[in-house]
Amino acid sequence: MRSVGICVIGAGRAGLVHARNYRENVPGGSLAAIVDADLDLAKRAARELEIDHYFSSLEDALEGASFGAVCIASPTFTHRDLATAAAAEGKHIFCEKPMAITMEEAEEMIQAAGAADVLLQMGFMRRFDPVFRVAKGLIEAGEIGSPMLVRSLTRGPGLPPRWACDIRTSNGMLAEVNSHDFDTIRWLSESEYQRIYAEANTLKCFDLKEEFPDFYDNAVVSLRLKNGGLGIIEGSCPVHYGYDARAEVLGSEGVMLIGELQDTAVVTCTKSTGLVSSNFPGWRERFREAYIAEARHFVECVVKEREPAVTGEDGKRALEGVLAANQSIKTGRPVDLPLERD
Amino acid sequence: MRSVGICVIGAGRAGLVHARNYRENVPGGSLAAIVDADLDLAKRAARELEIDHYFSSLEDALEGASFGAVCIASPTFTHRDLATAAAAEGKHIFCEKPMAITMEEAEEMIQAAGAADVLLQMGFMRRFDPVFRVAKGLIEAGEIGSPMLVRSLTRGPGLPPRWACDIRTSNGMLAEVNSHDFDTIRWLSESEYQRIYAEANTLKCFDLKEEFPDFYDNAVVSLRLKNGGLGIIEGSCPVHYGYDARAEVLGSEGVMLIGELQDTAVVTCTKSTGLVSSNFPGWRERFREAYIAEARHFVECVVKEREPAVTGEDGKRALEGVLAANQSIKTGRPVDLPLERD
Amino acid sequence: MRSVGICVIGAGRAGLVHARNYRENVPGGSLAAIVDADLDLAKRAARELEIDHYFSSLEDALEGASFGAVCIASPTFTHRDLATAAAAEGKHIFCEKPMAITMEEAEEMIQAAGAADVLLQMGFMRRFDPVFRVAKGLIEAGEIGSPMLVRSLTRGPGLPPRWACDIRTSNGMLAEVNSHDFDTIRWLSESEYQRIYAEANTLKCFDLKEEFPDFYDNAVVSLRLKNGGLGIIEGSCPVHYGYDARAEVLGSEGVMLIGELQDTAVVTCTKSTGLVSSNFPGWRERFREAYIAEARHFVECVVKEREPAVTGEDGKRALEGVLAANQSIKTGRPVDLPLERD
Amino acid sequence: MRSVGICVIGAGRAGLVHARNYRENVPGGSLAAIVDADLDLAKRAARELEIDHYFSSLEDALEGASFGAVCIASPTFTHRDLATAAAAEGKHIFCEKPMAITMEEAEEMIQAAGAADVLLQMGFMRRFDPVFRVAKGLIEAGEIGSPMLVRSLTRGPGLPPRWACDIRTSNGMLAEVNSHDFDTIRWLSESEYQRIYAEANTLKCFDLKEEFPDFYDNAVVSLRLKNGGLGIIEGSCPVHYGYDARAEVLGSEGVMLIGELQDTAVVTCTKSTGLVSSNFPGWRERFREAYIAEARHFVECVVKEREPAVTGEDGKRALEGVLAANQSIKTGRPVDLPLERD
Repeated sequence: MRSVGICVIGAGRAGLVHARNYRENVPGGSLAAIVDADLDLAKRAARELEIDHYFSSLEDALEGASFGAVCIASPTFTHRDLATAAAAEGKHIFCEKPMAITMEEAEEMIQAAGAADVLLQMGFMRRFDPVFRVAKGLIEAGEIGSPMLVRSLTRGPGLPPRWACDIRTSNGMLAEVNSHDFDTIRWLSESEYQRIYAEANTLKCFDLKEEFPDFYDNAVVSLRLKNGGLGIIEGSCPVHYGYDARAEVLGSEGVMLIGELQDTAVVTCTKSTGLVSSNFPGWRERFREAYIAEARHFVECVVKEREPAVTGEDGKRALEGVLAANQSIKTGRPVDLPLERD
Repeated sequence: MRSVGICVIGAGRAGLVHARNYRENVPGGSLAAIVDADLDLAKRAARELEIDHYFSSLEDALEGASFGAVCIASPTFTHRDLATAAAAEGKHIFCEKPMAITMEEAEEMIQAAGAADVLLQMGFMRRFDPVFRVAKGLIEAGEIGSPMLVRSLTRGPGLPPRWACDIRTSNGMLAEVNSHDFDTIRWLSESEYQRIYAEANTLKCFDLKEEFPDFYDNAVVSLRLKNGGLGIIEGSCPVHYGYDARAEVLGSEGVMLIGELQDTAVVTCTKSTGLVSSNFPGWRERFREAYIAEARHFVECVVKEREPAVTGEDGKRALEGVLAANQSIKTGRPVDLPLERD
Repeated sequence: MRSVGICVIGAGRAGLVHARNYRENVPGGSLAAIVDADLDLAKRAARELEIDHYFSSLEDALEGASFGAVCIASPTFTHRDLATAAAAEGKHIFCEKPMAITMEEAEEMIQAAGAADVLLQMGFMRRFDPVFRVAKGLIEAGEIGSPMLVRSLTRGPGLPPRWACDIRTSNGMLAEVNSHDFDTIRWLSESEYQRIYAEANTLKCFDLKEEFPDFYDNAVVSLRLKNGGLGIIEGSCPVHYGYDARAEVLGSEGVMLIGELQDTAVVTCTKSTGLVSSNFPGWRERFREAYIAEARHFVECVVKEREPAVTGEDGKRALEGVLAANQSIKTGRPVDLPLERD
Repeated sequence: MRSVGICVIGAGRAGLVHARNYRENVPGGSLAAIVDADLDLAKRAARELEIDHYFSSLEDALEGASFGAVCIASPTFTHRDLATAAAAEGKHIFCEKPMAITMEEAEEMIQAAGAADVLLQMGFMRRFDPVFRVAKGLIEAGEIGSPMLVRSLTRGPGLPPRWACDIRTSNGMLAEVNSHDFDTIRWLSESEYQRIYAEANTLKCFDLKEEFPDFYDNAVVSLRLKNGGLGIIEGSCPVHYGYDARAEVLGSEGVMLIGELQDTAVVTCTKSTGLVSSNFPGWRERFREAYIAEARHFVECVVKEREPAVTGEDGKRALEGVLAANQSIKTGRPVDLPLERD
């Protein structure tokens, strides 16, 4: 099997997860370089990852290192420029969610990849999670009949970075945290969004609300699907208790619960505590295997010249859902899809 | 302890649950009579319950039997007349949900009970369910901080009776099945509804949809609470798989899951089945203890002349939520509460 | 249905559970009197139970009150005399476990009941527990094939009363706590014991061990059944964490887990605690429904003149298992059944 | 990090698991060669694993390939010769369980490794399983006080190979399947075995019983530990329902359940099935992560010249438990440890 060198862009938490996987857990893939606008961060990461190449920009990396693909894990507002630049150099593209800030950006990325004939895979790793995959397989096998309702929730423990608190430049929590849910509902229902209504409020981070007037830390999104089905997305961030990603699908013949709070199958019971087990502290622990499988899939698609299972189109559709929900929050009205362009 | 005779009105499934409990499981209460517009049904029930008194109307029962209270378990559209008639005769009133068809009816019932100085307890038995009570206690003790989101769902296995399929005369599934959820969210959040948006569709009973144009068998209700919190109600009926009543509360410090699908703590595992356990077939099995506790509470309130824990006001508030949700389904817009009167 | 008056003997915890059930939860049964050697205790119980008749001995009760049956819930060493005295007066007998101290006593009780033609039901309430009944039904339906191994455990939170610490007069923990397991394994396997080996030790109550040289607070019993199957009993008392009664059956086609630690289906999760739910604090909470069903069964058997589902023979067989296990602990050898008599 | 070449001996199922891990999942380790007495099997494996070197004996491999360590995954009766030969050539040794057939063999292996100053790691992969590690950590942290009882069970879905059916040459099911439990109880209790009693029977494979008179397919082992604690091992193989490896630890302050039947956190519920989820089909699925972590540990120990966490001494102790249990089954008596040598 030929080997694919990967340049990881972004030395934050997500970037490091990807970098480490390409280094240790992806046969056929290898970590070629790490890029971060903060060169010190890139350097520290390179040392930790035991690689030589670190840069402060993709341009420098393209000059100073050799690789066949990029893995974009930098802030959302940088995705479009990075993806189009990578495509222009014939590099395959793995892009973290959310795909971009606007529909126009997303479309530009898709076109750039298409024009350069490079792959564009979106980082919806839940599609590679063993739990969600089993669920998807059972739904496809008809175990619960036709999906009538899909509920998907994501709650995260950590405060967003400051750039993500400003909804105008980041699309806020629904983009940063709940992009996955917008993808999951499409994936499990095999339908597109028709109408979206959202309620949101700030119930915890009152300071951030003062600073960023459009900020919210809790949201509920009602979705009506093109096939007539219904959907619900629940978002909350930060939640103190840990990381939480669960879904439920009601089908015409039965119901399916996907995921659970419990991390490890160890339960203790004492007089003072009752029954206790541990929950997932963060997304890295919950989706460890999913990130590995996602990266293996990307490398395999590059090597075998196949279309990835999660494409730029999927990224664009999830983004459209986020934008519609934010518009609904702003207007207090349900929003029909597809969104009208200005 | 002095004994209270109860006249149960309605010999359908709910009526029989109440009647049997008053006969067997409520110290201080006794089943005095059973009433059903269908006298044959009343007669059969009386024989089965081993009591002598059965009637085709409350009027006949008032003449022919002696009792201190009525338990109204007949169709919703009869509640107002029965409650006001009972109040006029000084009988205490236990009334099944939904309370009534309109806000005006609900208010009339509350006033009649108040004027006659009789008790009016609403049949939201979940408030007496051991599972929900533990949950409420933990929330009150601050175990998960302040509730930010309450999700409550009810799914039932059986087709509604025909009178309940016509939303104009019954308020439909959200009234018949999900009244409980409207009460649960108020109870657990300790807040009132401010704005309600609902999506509904017919995804199963296509025949009924043809006959009753406003019919729906699946609904998702988004709720915004006066305290800023959010709520979700999920309703589906009929679902093949059984009866399902669960809730989840997200608090500022943690999360709480209330109820589960599993009926009995027996799990089997074989090669052909995997892990298997049984779920609740119906509401009678799920809430058996709750119905007993509810009836005991009613009798205790009558005997000790105390206000019940669930009042006509609670019935009216839940009804208002149902009416707002139905209005939202009809108009495609969120609806502010309190509802405006014509 | 004719009513059966019950005289409860023993105003300790088990006696009060039975007394309260006969008073409140058993149609056709009524609490006629309460007896305790400590008359003050009996008096206090009678007041609490709102009945008039309390006595310090069965003789007094037979003279001073009218009843058709006794419920023996006094210390084990009193069972034989009470049961034979009740039988002599034609009273039906419900007897708590363990049945008696010796095989001879157990046989005497069975013969006395037989000679007087009164019922003798043993207090193995697990046979009436909804969880265990579902399990038994599934086994009988062949869901897991033929049972090959049955494991049953009981752990209790409380220190035994002093009389039960002396193994010579009480048969110790295996009798007081694990009698149920000896019955459960026979019931679920439908086989008798052939050989028993036990290991026991004192791992907690070192003080009691000093006072009572044969005392043990932890035991594991290996059982070989007549049908070739295997069994395990685990006992531990006191355990700090609460009450625990679970079983597992390995069949030729599958496995079955019976019971669980969790008391109520409410789970909370916070950062500091992880996932938490409550477990059963004691046997009264775990087996509340079982005690009611057991008492209803007894009254029904008396009224309809039927043989109870759990007989004196069952009590004797469980006792034989306990005695064999104690003998094994003492000799360090496996013990064959039936036990040889001196 | 310097790289360690591994020669995997045995191209059966366990050998392939190890080989694949060294090839894909162990940074610093690489698969150098595969050996199987059946050269065709070795060849097929090599092709599948995309490596060039395959041999029919360790001797040939030592000549024809270059590696620093061997991974012994061939039948038990070959372990002693392979390990001593590898040690003689200065190769580090990873050896699958059970370690050997006799105590003498086990000791010879330990001495050979010691004399050659090579590592000898035993394949008790449960020590590297995330579930068991969390459990061990909580026990060490004192969460349930001092362990008083450890129960450990292993049940496997597949028929043993023929050589493993003859107890005289393989030590039978307790060696092949339950070696892990003998290690787990020592590990979790931090105590050695003092006395062992076992009951066994053939309840399924009646044909094998005829052919191999000492054969058994179900066993229960009672253990008394040096620290006074108690232990139970349950073994059954084959079981139709899948693979099962669970443990329970009763401590002085609480209880701990380790592992569960459920494989993936997806639950479906339909009318005809009730609640359903999938269980582990085999040990490869259950312990996938454990095998990877075990192999990484071995490579790390080789590279960093550290003593492995699971040593030949651990293998010898588990073997002694197996031998004592088999002796107990044969004699019908408890057996004291250490075993007497002939």
